[in-house]
Amino acid sequence: MKKEYVSKNVIQRMPRYLRELNDLEREGVERISSSELGTRMGLTPSQIRQDFANFGGFGQQGYGYNVHTLKDEIGAILGVDRDRSMILVGTGKLGQCLLENFDFQHCGFTLKAAFDIKEDIVGETICGVPVLNAAVIRDYLRENPTDVAVLSTNRENVPIAAAALIESGIHAIWNFTECEISAGDSGVIIETIHFSDSLLRLGYYLNEED
Amino acid sequence: MKKEYVSKNVIQRMPRYLRELNDLEREGVERISSSELGTRMGLTPSQIRQDFANFGGFGQQGYGYNVHTLKDEIGAILGVDRDRSMILVGTGKLGQCLLENFDFQHCGFTLKAAFDIKEDIVGETICGVPVLNAAVIRDYLRENPTDVAVLSTNRENVPIAAAALIESGIHAIWNFTECEISAGDSGVIIETIHFSDSLLRLGYYLNEED
Repeated sequence: MKKEYVSKNVIQRMPRYLRELNDLEREGVERISSSELGTRMGLTPSQIRQDFANFGGFGQQGYGYNVHTLKDEIGAILGVDRDRSMILVGTGKLGQCLLENFDFQHCGFTLKAAFDIKEDIVGETICGVPVLNAAVIRDYLRENPTDVAVLSTNRENVPIAAAALIESGIHAIWNFTECEISAGDSGVIIETIHFSDSLLRLGYYLNEED
Repeated sequence: MKKEYVSKNVIQRMPRYLRELNDLEREGVERISSSELGTRMGLTPSQIRQDFANFGGFGQQGYGYNVHTLKDEIGAILGVDRDRSMILVGTGKLGQCLLENFDFQHCGFTLKAAFDIKEDIVGETICGVPVLNAAVIRDYLRENPTDVAVLSTNRENVPIAAAALIESGIHAIWNFTECEISAGDSGVIIETIHFSDSLLRLGYYLNEED
């Protein structure tokens, strides 16, 4: 894989390509041209070729792309073949919803443990994932080096939870708390899902229609 | 507001500007230059000026931006002052989490009703929002024209729920189901939160570090 700088917009589109290729595979399509793929995704063929050129380029002139191969190549760029370790911190409604419904494995992650401070849930198992006491997060991470933590605590517990994770050597935080988390100079990757950003964009498009 | 074409990337950044301005206001900052704002947000001053130029431009040469005014102007572009009507379809864990925790009002929306098919929750009230039987969605929307539906049903109920919403004149769907929804030629705005896209981006950044 090329290690040169890849723009945020390209990285933003890579998971969309993967989704589209999964759909194509399900539909039984074996081969697709950049213009057909562009039509499905609302992109120009040249944009698609430029995007892929960031990773050395895929496909063959005059043939297009083999759907299965391209899916595997993009999947590898996004790490779906990695089986990285993951914990979840905060088993409220959102945390439970993720534990019960989200297909972590499909994205290349295995949930090893969940953490909470509420006594009535500590000791339970949710979809095969044990819920441990949040007080032992640092000990757990020392004994079980972990790639990623899903952060789905209440707002008020974000600072203490984030500090424990960052100081214990987590590599990345998948942040659902709507709070900004600063990784300081730790190098920890923070990927935040901003529900409100999405709803505000929807508000923008509604305004445009008025 | 100018009605010319504004690129997706600009629209993507507008909610970020609003978040940043909210933070600045909380910190007591009254005035900020495009270069100071750029430093905080990881953008160049010229990108910020270009973004704002799409909306006629804000601020004054040599003065910068008045934080409070800019926040209001960007808020208006995103419709936070609109008080649009909203329903929520699917009161599982994610739906309940949104009802209990998400600040819809802050984004310019008022939740009027929720819908579910499960008898044990129909008739309940969650955080002041009545839960109605999903069988009456079409009747409800005929009597109560509604701007937006939050869609948080199980995967298997997405097609029937989306069809009911689109055929009953909803203007937009805020889609949490991880399923693609086609609005056909209805003109309905679909804004989807793809949890997996976000996790795959995180996977990409982890791969880059290896």
